[in-house]
Amino acid sequence: MTSRRPTIGVFDSGFGGLTVLKALLELVPSADYLYFGDTARLPYGSKSVETVARYAVEAAHYLEAHGAGLLVIACNTATALALDRITAAAQVPVVGVVEPGAEAAASVSKNRKVVVLGTEATVSSHAYRKALEARGIDSREKACPLLVPLVEEGWVEHPVTEQIARIYLDEAFADGFREADALVLGCTHYPLLKALLHRVAPSHVSIVDSAESTARAVVRHLQKLLPPTEAIQEERRALPRLKFFATDSVEKFRRLGPRFLGHPIEDVQHVDLKE
Amino acid sequence: MTSRRPTIGVFDSGFGGLTVLKALLELVPSADYLYFGDTARLPYGSKSVETVARYAVEAAHYLEAHGAGLLVIACNTATALALDRITAAAQVPVVGVVEPGAEAAASVSKNRKVVVLGTEATVSSHAYRKALEARGIDSREKACPLLVPLVEEGWVEHPVTEQIARIYLDEAFADGFREADALVLGCTHYPLLKALLHRVAPSHVSIVDSAESTARAVVRHLQKLLPPTEAIQEERRALPRLKFFATDSVEKFRRLGPRFLGHPIEDVQHVDLKE
Repeated sequence: MTSRRPTIGVFDSGFGGLTVLKALLELVPSADYLYFGDTARLPYGSKSVETVARYAVEAAHYLEAHGAGLLVIACNTATALALDRITAAAQVPVVGVVEPGAEAAASVSKNRKVVVLGTEATVSSHAYRKALEARGIDSREKACPLLVPLVEEGWVEHPVTEQIARIYLDEAFADGFREADALVLGCTHYPLLKALLHRVAPSHVSIVDSAESTARAVVRHLQKLLPPTEAIQEERRALPRLKFFATDSVEKFRRLGPRFLGHPIEDVQHVDLKE
Repeated sequence: MTSRRPTIGVFDSGFGGLTVLKALLELVPSADYLYFGDTARLPYGSKSVETVARYAVEAAHYLEAHGAGLLVIACNTATALALDRITAAAQVPVVGVVEPGAEAAASVSKNRKVVVLGTEATVSSHAYRKALEARGIDSREKACPLLVPLVEEGWVEHPVTEQIARIYLDEAFADGFREADALVLGCTHYPLLKALLHRVAPSHVSIVDSAESTARAVVRHLQKLLPPTEAIQEERRALPRLKFFATDSVEKFRRLGPRFLGHPIEDVQHVDLKE
């Protein structure tokens, strides 16, 4: 990090990573943020390791070239499938969403049994299972491919969404996982369904939002990079500066992004990675 | 077309176009088929004109370079957003799915009112509305973004899918369109929901499957390219030869493709359009 004010690059396949940016803005308001949404090639959740890794490394290089001193891979699928490849390709520190999510789940689960919801690709990679196993936690990973399109349709409180969530959770909390007591939202779209999932999940279950735990992991990284007193002074001194890059329509990013970020999005630039 | 046995290039964003290939195989069994599924970048249905046009033109060039003498754009979104650009870029004749679908709807609709279901991008382009207007037909286009993921989840006869289809169709067949008497399946995933949509749509409605009408349009094109007697001889002489190209995982294409094509898929080759 060359300047004392950090430049944090946040990468996602599309809009979902804005929930991670939102959590970051609360904990680290005094930073420059570059958000890259690969909206032309989303969703990553149904794609293969090779394809996701290639796309994610391209985006990481783009963010570094634009001054990011720390990279946050805000996409669960990209983290699960390609964090090692991105870390190897990057010159700066890289923080993914899986380890912080697993860490948070491990700290709240008393029964040492956790359910993880994710995309098909995240679940197939077993990245969460491995991260939880390393912490002595037994987990069941459940692919929920309909939840992302339901969120994108804006049906976050729709009876159909509740019905589908109930089908997924009934399957996940069955058999050996009735006593699981933590539910990891292993996809950045799912925080928009938090209220609904709270109603549908068994009442003894805590919901773990990877966005929040990732923001805390970023704070720890920054504390290593910047002396704490300086970091605190910075925090008091200035507001965040935000710049957004999207590979598909800028207009659409401006229109849909606020749903995830919670406030308006202005400075969006179109990026064509082939150029 | 240089040889007497046609080589037909079929392009789609993913798997859905296999329903068009299936219809083609029934009408034109004696041909070589090259099917290109841009599975790494699917779905197109939520992307912008610029992005879809660029992707589709790349794929069209690929198919031409591999010997296609006729291109079928089996993706409604690519046809709706980019048929003119693909036609301008290609050296060979190009057949899209929108005109044949509109033609078939015009021929079955007695009330001259038609409902078209499609992706968000297809509906926003109003390609069907324009094609139907040109035939004196009044239309309502309804975006159904959840139907593709429901088909991909395999929930083609699921009560949740029926409920969602009912919501979409109730909205579409409301107000001035209660007497609409044709329903165009303006996305290649929807033919898999044909039985369910028959149950949910008003009983007086005919369902128009663009896949079938596109296959008939291809036959007409081939008759222009090949003298009819030769075409008929060819048809009697040989079985189809099929070759598939996919930009994402070949294994996944082999696994999911048969759901749309109706029979096993063997010869799949991975394509990286950046190479």
